[in-house]
Amino acid sequence: MKNTTQINPKQAAGEKAAQLVKNNMVVGLGTGSTTAYAIKELGKRVASGLKILGVPTSYQSAFLATENGIPLTTLDEHPVLDIAIDGADQVANFAAIKGGGAAHTREKIVALSAKKFIVVADESKVAEVLNHPVPLEVLPFARKLVVKQVAKLGGKAVVRMGINKDGPVISDNGNFILDADFGEINDPELLDRELSQCTGIVEHGIFTKGVLRAFAVIIT
Amino acid sequence: MKNTTQINPKQAAGEKAAQLVKNNMVVGLGTGSTTAYAIKELGKRVASGLKILGVPTSYQSAFLATENGIPLTTLDEHPVLDIAIDGADQVANFAAIKGGGAAHTREKIVALSAKKFIVVADESKVAEVLNHPVPLEVLPFARKLVVKQVAKLGGKAVVRMGINKDGPVISDNGNFILDADFGEINDPELLDRELSQCTGIVEHGIFTKGVLRAFAVIIT
Repeated sequence: MKNTTQINPKQAAGEKAAQLVKNNMVVGLGTGSTTAYAIKELGKRVASGLKILGVPTSYQSAFLATENGIPLTTLDEHPVLDIAIDGADQVANFAAIKGGGAAHTREKIVALSAKKFIVVADESKVAEVLNHPVPLEVLPFARKLVVKQVAKLGGKAVVRMGINKDGPVISDNGNFILDADFGEINDPELLDRELSQCTGIVEHGIFTKGVLRAFAVIIT
Repeated sequence: MKNTTQINPKQAAGEKAAQLVKNNMVVGLGTGSTTAYAIKELGKRVASGLKILGVPTSYQSAFLATENGIPLTTLDEHPVLDIAIDGADQVANFAAIKGGGAAHTREKIVALSAKKFIVVADESKVAEVLNHPVPLEVLPFARKLVVKQVAKLGGKAVVRMGINKDGPVISDNGNFILDADFGEINDPELLDRELSQCTGIVEHGIFTKGVLRAFAVIIT
């Protein structure tokens, strides 16, 4: 029988990450259900006097931050963030796959703009080897070319379809999301480089140590 | 005194390229003033009975093709093109810089979708070594991060401003264009790879032999 007093592991991870935020920091706010707990916890701390500014990675995180009283800024005003907090679809060793929420492009831009990048994940997201399909943000004009390029790299890319929207998902940047299955990804840094070379992919969802200079994972 | 009967070299290059198009071909239609001559010449040949379909790389080439009676199709219907014809801002050895018209992203997608890619250029575009600023199509959200990444690669990137439009140029895909000056580019294939790794750049304007499998240059 499930212990109903047990804390939700996503919530635990999100709230722990929020504790890393100090007064006067500019904070990158990731997207997704785990990060949502971090944003809500930050909102509580702001209500108690914490002074921060947030840079959202999506409409979702912007809406949530505003609802929770976190003042927002932009990468134009604050091109260097003190910290960014975000979730992941899968984590293994020093790499992660992101983009289940179709927000990985802005998430990667925010992560690269931050001095520290904190990935929060519960145990269900941790794998020995990455094998989750890799989300690709793709220019609609390049869909078939990207499918072909991914096939050359040994993957199978399919267009993610909308729910509550007919036809394909459209990202916050106005593009398609393709989910590219490569099976087990034994060398994520190589696949990162290979996907970056593909024309028509705006950004892919593999986050590696090579891309992210300061990268910590909080797992509950 | 200028010889006014001399044929315009852009026109000569464009019309020569149009002669490479045969009946029943699907043709990628580039953007810019030289390619415009090719499109107009193709329009004349269509009026004389040539049967082709065009895939435009921009609103400009779509409008021009339609005005000149060339029926259009898409990369969805015809993911493999027989030939693509396009201009360049600068050509040296087996590389080119494109994007003066802010259309290099779709141009590269179309070039990669074509069995043959023909660059048309007059002599003024030919250099010993590439040194033209490299156009970068950039997500507005990533502007400052891209400037920083380009600086790490030894370049200086500035946002291209609109004329007949206040503020920055917006590309046909809804993004910014940054012009990145790297001085002399002695290893375009290296810079191609390096710029492809930058987060926030949708596509850059360096076209190399590595990217383009079948690549011919017509110069007048």
